[in-house]
Amino acid sequence: MESKFEFAKQLIREAGQLILKHLSDELVVEEKGRFDDLVTSLDKEVQDFLVTEIHKHYPADAILAEENNLRHSVTDGKVWVLDPIDGTVNFIVQRDYFAILIAYYEDGLGQFGLIYDVINDRLFHGGGIFDVYMNDELLSPYQDKPLSRSLIGGNSGMYAQNEHGIRDFIQQSLGLRVYGGAGISMGYVLTGKLMAYFSYLQPWDYAAAKILGDKLGYVLLTLDGNEPDFTHRQKVMFVPKVKLALIKKAISSHENS
Amino acid sequence: MESKFEFAKQLIREAGQLILKHLSDELVVEEKGRFDDLVTSLDKEVQDFLVTEIHKHYPADAILAEENNLRHSVTDGKVWVLDPIDGTVNFIVQRDYFAILIAYYEDGLGQFGLIYDVINDRLFHGGGIFDVYMNDELLSPYQDKPLSRSLIGGNSGMYAQNEHGIRDFIQQSLGLRVYGGAGISMGYVLTGKLMAYFSYLQPWDYAAAKILGDKLGYVLLTLDGNEPDFTHRQKVMFVPKVKLALIKKAISSHENS
Repeated sequence: MESKFEFAKQLIREAGQLILKHLSDELVVEEKGRFDDLVTSLDKEVQDFLVTEIHKHYPADAILAEENNLRHSVTDGKVWVLDPIDGTVNFIVQRDYFAILIAYYEDGLGQFGLIYDVINDRLFHGGGIFDVYMNDELLSPYQDKPLSRSLIGGNSGMYAQNEHGIRDFIQQSLGLRVYGGAGISMGYVLTGKLMAYFSYLQPWDYAAAKILGDKLGYVLLTLDGNEPDFTHRQKVMFVPKVKLALIKKAISSHENS
Repeated sequence: MESKFEFAKQLIREAGQLILKHLSDELVVEEKGRFDDLVTSLDKEVQDFLVTEIHKHYPADAILAEENNLRHSVTDGKVWVLDPIDGTVNFIVQRDYFAILIAYYEDGLGQFGLIYDVINDRLFHGGGIFDVYMNDELLSPYQDKPLSRSLIGGNSGMYAQNEHGIRDFIQQSLGLRVYGGAGISMGYVLTGKLMAYFSYLQPWDYAAAKILGDKLGYVLLTLDGNEPDFTHRQKVMFVPKVKLALIKKAISSHENS
């Protein structure tokens, strides 16, 4: 597993270089469905690069990825879960607050995860048998503190609609933060800038953070408290294990979705 | 004015050094009223440093500042408007996403403004007779683009309550972003990462951005479309002048506060 992990760390940094090389290009932006669900030619180019390199080195491995409908089940064999540009809207508008996400699973068990904040050159890596680092800095497990001294990351729509009572819960904290990228936001959870994160995510958005978080005292679950299914978009939470009972209690009385 | 402006740029960087020196200290945090309205001993120390240095160099100048109830009117003579740590909650929880804010007014006319993002060492400076820079990079005026290709910064409470129809308006954009610091957020407006910013602000939160923005095609107005009063907390917007008619139309049909 060590050599595969080293390969993944090098791969994600090379993909970051590919993005940086094209950072000033005029982007070709397409709408995938709604006006605010966007993809660029670079999303596809970066994913193609990742898939080609993985298959060159590990021809038998399978892929679950955002673009091009690559949908291998994580429970079946050796599977790489890829999001070439997580936070595409931020990438398009801000050229910031986006990340490359890679997770590696064997028969449904997370082996390692990587979140690469390209602009700030911050690579979160580890999980499984590996300790979790941000670049060369070993990250500490979640240090418990009161909700009233914590910030919560999330999705503005779920907050505005008070889905599952999330707004009532967040109003007991120091406030909501919305950065608009799942990878960036969950990286902030891993470094303690946010206590928790709530959003409506696809498997490639949460796969890496789930593996990384597991080593640092966090769980990634659906808002109903179940394991996410890795097949379709779900409302999920990324929260400290020691806060799970409190959070479940706060949101369990609101079964509105 | 040039020498005063140079003094202010040096002063704000020295104040940043003072914060960085104490960044790992255990902070003494006090509640000012509500549990989420916080101040630290460092807010006061940084403000004292700024006030002492200003009075050493300009003994006749007056101060309007967040801490210690310094409330000189900006319309009366030479007045420095100071926020030693804007985004105090972020500073306490994240040690990031905060800024030092300095604005200088003469008889109510903004002469220059400074926003210093200490952690990222990004100093926005200019306004009045000075061009606007981020560090050494000359900033461009607002480049018009559709709302449907823009992000909007704001206050989660005003969004959730749809105050003045703000949520309806933001839902025509690519989305809301909430960073939790007025200075940081308005810096993102000045660099085009956000098209506009809506929040509930004190004079020291908006004074610097108002002067800087005026040079780059932005206005800072209350949600009713009036000049802010520089005396108490008001709901304000920081928006491109060319979008003002569109925004006024969108929010004028909602006179709910």
